[in-house]
Amino acid sequence: MNALFDKLEEYYEEMVSIRRHLHQHPEISFKEEKTAKYIQTFYENLGIEVRGQVGGNGVVAKIYGSKPGKTIALRADFDALPIQDEKDVPYKSLVPGVMHACGHDGHTATLLVLAKVLHEMREKLEGNYVIIHQHAEEYAPGGAISMIEDGCLNGVDVIFGTHLWASEPTGTIQYRVGPVMAAADRFEITIQGKGGHGAQPHRTKDAIVTASQLVINLQQIVSRKVNPIDSAVVTVGSFVADNAFNVIADRAKLIGTVRTFNEEVRTFIEEEIERIVKGTCYTANSTYDYLFAKGYPAVVNHKEETDYLVTCAQQVDSVTNIEETEPHMGGEDFAYYLQHVKGTFFFTGAKPVYTDENYPHHHPKFDIDEKAMLIAAKTLGTAALQYHS
Amino acid sequence: MNALFDKLEEYYEEMVSIRRHLHQHPEISFKEEKTAKYIQTFYENLGIEVRGQVGGNGVVAKIYGSKPGKTIALRADFDALPIQDEKDVPYKSLVPGVMHACGHDGHTATLLVLAKVLHEMREKLEGNYVIIHQHAEEYAPGGAISMIEDGCLNGVDVIFGTHLWASEPTGTIQYRVGPVMAAADRFEITIQGKGGHGAQPHRTKDAIVTASQLVINLQQIVSRKVNPIDSAVVTVGSFVADNAFNVIADRAKLIGTVRTFNEEVRTFIEEEIERIVKGTCYTANSTYDYLFAKGYPAVVNHKEETDYLVTCAQQVDSVTNIEETEPHMGGEDFAYYLQHVKGTFFFTGAKPVYTDENYPHHHPKFDIDEKAMLIAAKTLGTAALQYHS
Amino acid sequence: MNALFDKLEEYYEEMVSIRRHLHQHPEISFKEEKTAKYIQTFYENLGIEVRGQVGGNGVVAKIYGSKPGKTIALRADFDALPIQDEKDVPYKSLVPGVMHACGHDGHTATLLVLAKVLHEMREKLEGNYVIIHQHAEEYAPGGAISMIEDGCLNGVDVIFGTHLWASEPTGTIQYRVGPVMAAADRFEITIQGKGGHGAQPHRTKDAIVTASQLVINLQQIVSRKVNPIDSAVVTVGSFVADNAFNVIADRAKLIGTVRTFNEEVRTFIEEEIERIVKGTCYTANSTYDYLFAKGYPAVVNHKEETDYLVTCAQQVDSVTNIEETEPHMGGEDFAYYLQHVKGTFFFTGAKPVYTDENYPHHHPKFDIDEKAMLIAAKTLGTAALQYHS
Amino acid sequence: MNALFDKLEEYYEEMVSIRRHLHQHPEISFKEEKTAKYIQTFYENLGIEVRGQVGGNGVVAKIYGSKPGKTIALRADFDALPIQDEKDVPYKSLVPGVMHACGHDGHTATLLVLAKVLHEMREKLEGNYVIIHQHAEEYAPGGAISMIEDGCLNGVDVIFGTHLWASEPTGTIQYRVGPVMAAADRFEITIQGKGGHGAQPHRTKDAIVTASQLVINLQQIVSRKVNPIDSAVVTVGSFVADNAFNVIADRAKLIGTVRTFNEEVRTFIEEEIERIVKGTCYTANSTYDYLFAKGYPAVVNHKEETDYLVTCAQQVDSVTNIEETEPHMGGEDFAYYLQHVKGTFFFTGAKPVYTDENYPHHHPKFDIDEKAMLIAAKTLGTAALQYHS
Repeated sequence: MNALFDKLEEYYEEMVSIRRHLHQHPEISFKEEKTAKYIQTFYENLGIEVRGQVGGNGVVAKIYGSKPGKTIALRADFDALPIQDEKDVPYKSLVPGVMHACGHDGHTATLLVLAKVLHEMREKLEGNYVIIHQHAEEYAPGGAISMIEDGCLNGVDVIFGTHLWASEPTGTIQYRVGPVMAAADRFEITIQGKGGHGAQPHRTKDAIVTASQLVINLQQIVSRKVNPIDSAVVTVGSFVADNAFNVIADRAKLIGTVRTFNEEVRTFIEEEIERIVKGTCYTANSTYDYLFAKGYPAVVNHKEETDYLVTCAQQVDSVTNIEETEPHMGGEDFAYYLQHVKGTFFFTGAKPVYTDENYPHHHPKFDIDEKAMLIAAKTLGTAALQYHS
Repeated sequence: MNALFDKLEEYYEEMVSIRRHLHQHPEISFKEEKTAKYIQTFYENLGIEVRGQVGGNGVVAKIYGSKPGKTIALRADFDALPIQDEKDVPYKSLVPGVMHACGHDGHTATLLVLAKVLHEMREKLEGNYVIIHQHAEEYAPGGAISMIEDGCLNGVDVIFGTHLWASEPTGTIQYRVGPVMAAADRFEITIQGKGGHGAQPHRTKDAIVTASQLVINLQQIVSRKVNPIDSAVVTVGSFVADNAFNVIADRAKLIGTVRTFNEEVRTFIEEEIERIVKGTCYTANSTYDYLFAKGYPAVVNHKEETDYLVTCAQQVDSVTNIEETEPHMGGEDFAYYLQHVKGTFFFTGAKPVYTDENYPHHHPKFDIDEKAMLIAAKTLGTAALQYHS
Repeated sequence: MNALFDKLEEYYEEMVSIRRHLHQHPEISFKEEKTAKYIQTFYENLGIEVRGQVGGNGVVAKIYGSKPGKTIALRADFDALPIQDEKDVPYKSLVPGVMHACGHDGHTATLLVLAKVLHEMREKLEGNYVIIHQHAEEYAPGGAISMIEDGCLNGVDVIFGTHLWASEPTGTIQYRVGPVMAAADRFEITIQGKGGHGAQPHRTKDAIVTASQLVINLQQIVSRKVNPIDSAVVTVGSFVADNAFNVIADRAKLIGTVRTFNEEVRTFIEEEIERIVKGTCYTANSTYDYLFAKGYPAVVNHKEETDYLVTCAQQVDSVTNIEETEPHMGGEDFAYYLQHVKGTFFFTGAKPVYTDENYPHHHPKFDIDEKAMLIAAKTLGTAALQYHS
Repeated sequence: MNALFDKLEEYYEEMVSIRRHLHQHPEISFKEEKTAKYIQTFYENLGIEVRGQVGGNGVVAKIYGSKPGKTIALRADFDALPIQDEKDVPYKSLVPGVMHACGHDGHTATLLVLAKVLHEMREKLEGNYVIIHQHAEEYAPGGAISMIEDGCLNGVDVIFGTHLWASEPTGTIQYRVGPVMAAADRFEITIQGKGGHGAQPHRTKDAIVTASQLVINLQQIVSRKVNPIDSAVVTVGSFVADNAFNVIADRAKLIGTVRTFNEEVRTFIEEEIERIVKGTCYTANSTYDYLFAKGYPAVVNHKEETDYLVTCAQQVDSVTNIEETEPHMGGEDFAYYLQHVKGTFFFTGAKPVYTDENYPHHHPKFDIDEKAMLIAAKTLGTAALQYHS
């Protein structure tokens, strides 16, 4: 690995430079055209095979080793968020209201430089490398589905990806076998009662009482219906029945989210919500509309590849702590790749050191420790090189 | 009325004597054979036409006026309660565990003496008098239904009845047009879920949670579904799911009562409970049994007869206060007579004066002020004599 | 009464004319300056003693009988509503968005003409007459309080008022002893929980769940805490917690109304809501704001005056039906007058006959049968003239 | 390990014979005097140091290796259950209503024979062996606490224990790092309202409504308050308010269980239940009693010892499947040993093959595959011998 690590260290300045450029020029999901062009040009300038507009704004590069071997995919996402950058740093976003507040700029810089190094080492490499630069991770349905449909995984044997993780210190690698990020779905329920004068409840079907009953009934999904060993969340985030004080509500609208780690529980909850809505409305002699919109499925890491990744991380000098992480209830469309090929998605600690504050992802003052990019590149690179043996 | 009042006063001692005899020899509902015999013999000794075993233990006497006129029924009930008499009085019950704790002994004494007086005055009377001594008022289905089926109301134009009322002072007459005592029904609901180990809720259908939800849902019948102007009560009096601590309940049983003043609301609630049970069980994927057992209907006084009764009460010297009463949520099978003929049921204040305590009806220390019997007799007697004019 | 009735019939055309003028020139509550001026000028032109700006836009006229007697007040309100008149009639409102949709124009025309007649008959009259034209009945705190404070009831022995009632046919007079219109109060409750990400309920205090629980808990006030004989309504009309789907609500706002017929129940409910809010928030470890804004109290008619009014109505030839009404859950600030002097408030049937539809009060197509004004005037006039005897 | 395995196989018949003797003579928790005597005599007959009545009916034997080394404890429990044996086998329980329905007979036979073998091998052994035969595992507070207090862990470096597990086939070993069996606690809540007549809710505080509300409110602990990643169960297993139908309940009693895997969540839930009970009772103006009785804590396996145990199991020829198990929500007082010394508790598959049915533990037809005892002995023995290296 020495050659790989040396080259990555050599190009670390370029990595930082790329990341800062992207940080200053963020583009929101599905609108990342300049970023896509930037990536494509990077590869073209190096003479690397590259295809743009893969399933949208996606970009896929390919590097061919001189010896036979597996085909290994590495993935980084490159979209930003509609958030105003409030950091006070020289590389602050130049685009009002748009910001790389989740580290995708760092993901991209990491992968571009790693690909450049793999390209330079291609004479000594076995197998082939598929470098996936994915657009639109932040906004469902995301870019992964369409890029897969557009062939980005064709011939691929395994895939690795990482997320720079600002809540953990640089030097930490977090892994987990099985579900590591949740399926994140959305539901909407409209209760249609019968409105009327606030003084005449007997002539109405009070939609606020019914919807309140429903909110309470929904609690039993997690408390009674899901196996306590399984994690699940059912949240009603919005409840709106906006009327005058002396009126009985005609209608109430609930909107919420469901988080699960396996498809069986996910489907069960989708159906169970409808059962509860239906029964609660029958009780109230009212009607309803129910919409369950599936978001990303859970990211489910494969055991062998995750164990393998851990052995790779152990070889990286600057990795000081390798630990199993609890599953995260947030979502990631890396999930889709793992439904097609084996692989693992891990977290690379990237907590900034210039401030004592630890701003969460999606915060206006979010930032990463750029040194973490080097660790990510070394870990991913090791995984890429050793997979054949 | 002077002749009537004079005679009643003359026989007041006998009235007290009869009441005390009955008080010492109480018999519970549907078992009042000796009391029935006592009543029948009373009439036979006076040469008054009497029929026993009317619809059970009921006794009906008839008095014929010498002139044509209406046929007026007067009714008193004569059953006692399975309560131990705890009063310290000479006329205390001699039967262990049985007691006239509701004043029916007084009702009977009042009517016997009044009938005797009417019989003595028969030469001057218009119309006919049907004297109904009803058994089994305290225990549904009661004696009224079967006595009516056995013809006790045949040819009757109007009926009057009173209840000696220990919470109001002697001298008070309380009347009310329309519903004055509630329909009192009983329901039983069994929720059948699926039991299991307390640590594995996902393999069960928790009957306690479902039944609790049901109790809460039932509150909405009164709070939202019944016209606020109408009075109604839905009470779950019993909730039993008796298990070990580490078990999930297979089944829960609820028993309760419904009180209403009109048939429309009564039927609505009977149906609405089932709707709510059904919807709540659908929500919980569980099943149920539902039984709604109708008790006595509401006592609904007729306006004209009630107004008339008030004018009669105004003529009774010892009546010092005539007032409209709030409806009572308790039940009375006098209700059935009023479904067949016109009439009214009123309350005659009978608060004992020998104690400062005011024990409610059905209390082990319940008693009446015997003077109230004279007032009741005078009021009923006036109503009986003047109805023709 | 013949003289009174004859004169009222004679001036019926004028009554209609006044009503239509007012109907075309409606003014909303507290802004009724032109209407007040119109009324004041009417009296000035007749040489009747009149005082304007009584407690605001109120107008009070006085008529003195030639003989000693009681002082009798008659009251009519004259404000309109912010509703667009959608009727297709020649006397349709000329003011966009403002309309006499509750019959106050009719009340005013009735009382103006009745006062004119009383004035003309003053030589034969006993006692004095206080003619109260009240502004601002439709909008709490209403005009009655300030007019009373400004002395409009000084020296008054009794007060009568009526409401033209479009849901009952012309010819009907509805009365009721005791509470006839409800106290109508408003409450606002803000639940302050702790917001957060929809996937992390354990870090939050879910305000939607807490507010839903509260809505359910509030049902028990009517179902369990208020005497079933008393009528009461507790309605939550508005529930707003408007958020994204993947958020847990920080705060929820409930707004609602309470309707009661007696002050004890009203105060009890005000306090009971707070108890329930406090307990529910303790359960949820959250905080709250609670506001209970009292509206008009219940209109409670006095028995003697109501019975008297019925005898007066019986003398009016065109009254074909006199009946007791159920209490109405709506509010009226006539309530305040009855807290100071004896009197009664009754309903005069005024259902339009030119249409089969029966538009409720406050509806854009609301109208009255103008003939009802004559009945109202005759009934009020009879009550005014005979009260001394 | 060959010597160990050979000897164990040699004594397998004896192991079976012991197990069947114990199976026929079961004794319930805290009454296991004959069983204890049997165990003690076994050691005495072999000249092995043994101490009886350790913390009750516990028995502890000691075996000293000839070379210095660690002190290793092995534990087996020996109490039976108050269940009627319904199996049709020659070794069926001879004691009516008492049965080894959880495999403790097998645990004891396994450990007795393993200890005999270790004793025979003592010349070649390093370190010392503490053989813990624990009484009363089935009934809290269990025997572990008192045996520890009586010194059974003195000088011990590590402890191993296993449970024969009838739901998994023989040949399987299940392990888990961290929490593997839940803390199992019990709570009792009495709601004290104010009883009364079923028709007069306003004079009462309905304990059934309040307790139902409480059951519903408790659902939010798991659905909203506990981290979705943590497993927890709050079950109300019993709800009793047993009254006549026409009564309002004075009091309701709830009994239930809480299952958790870490002490922080356990303590949080204990406190949160009280918060919810307190708030719910405040809402209802009622009072309560709350008892939270801690049962066994969670069994939390140590990582290093668990990993070590897996390597030992890999050496056992007849172990065909080694797998991680999900945590079990049931309880085990092996938990207490692991609070004092390092170690691990694992499951040894023992599904009977003579029937297709798979009766769960504590079932009247429960049985084990006796061959599994040999596997358990080999795995525990390997762990005992190799721990020093």
